[in-house]
Amino acid sequence: MHAERILAALRDRGETLAVAESLTGGLLAAAFVEVPGASRVFRGGIVAYATELKAKLLGVPPPLLSSHGPVDPAVAAALAAGARERCGADWAAATTGVAGPDPQAGQPVGRVYVAVVGPPASRGEPDRVEVRELTLPGDRAAIRNGAVDAAVGLLAETLALV
Amino acid sequence: MHAERILAALRDRGETLAVAESLTGGLLAAAFVEVPGASRVFRGGIVAYATELKAKLLGVPPPLLSSHGPVDPAVAAALAAGARERCGADWAAATTGVAGPDPQAGQPVGRVYVAVVGPPASRGEPDRVEVRELTLPGDRAAIRNGAVDAAVGLLAETLALV
Repeated sequence: MHAERILAALRDRGETLAVAESLTGGLLAAAFVEVPGASRVFRGGIVAYATELKAKLLGVPPPLLSSHGPVDPAVAAALAAGARERCGADWAAATTGVAGPDPQAGQPVGRVYVAVVGPPASRGEPDRVEVRELTLPGDRAAIRNGAVDAAVGLLAETLALV
Repeated sequence: MHAERILAALRDRGETLAVAESLTGGLLAAAFVEVPGASRVFRGGIVAYATELKAKLLGVPPPLLSSHGPVDPAVAAALAAGARERCGADWAAATTGVAGPDPQAGQPVGRVYVAVVGPPASRGEPDRVEVRELTLPGDRAAIRNGAVDAAVGLLAETLALV
């Protein structure tokens, strides 16, 4: 529902969208592509599942990845910024987190960060960067679906649609 | 089911996997990521939904895109080759096609190409390249799910798992 409203709002603004994903592994892109007419707004996405691809495909600084690990709020923001730049989009949303079954890099199962980057709210201001931390319950599928909902929800809030 | 067997077989061979997607928009990556332990084999994927991103993110030759259009067997093979190279994987699978509701670039709704590229079957032979054309029935969701199944199935066949 939110995905459809986001695409309609961005279409009306003449703006485009991209995504970067880790634990959600393609589900965030799929949430947008399933909306008919998505191609007018949605440009594409990068699933950087292996940590080194977060650097190679999305330009996340390797020192950030090695010092903070891949499940980190600054990494989430960098993933979104990378998707925005590499896909040539106005807006981007990103996910990183631990779907389980095991903890990863010092973070517990269910810890998720979602991020949204976009153009400044007003001329002369810096780019919009929003990051949210979540601790999601449930199994691997529930955590991944919850991360998609959180990323879509953060984008809807940032666009003042909710 | 096939996705799980593919990941187990590649893990046993010490090989890795990446994907490139157009109409499936992340669902092919998600089919692999949903398998627990996927991170040992699955490196990542690129959703090149906008045609120009097929060139920019995956290295599909622009003259091929402009002469054949994005829904084409040679483009499918080039998408897979690009994912394999950009993600540093041994194997890659790709999808391109028309999910509808409207025909695209001279191709009817339901026309789908899936491709698999990988290392040579024997030393001294060229890389494996397999492409399959499908005409899938149903609505947008059915066509996208059918394209995922076809790509996974082609990879399973190429790996001699079925």
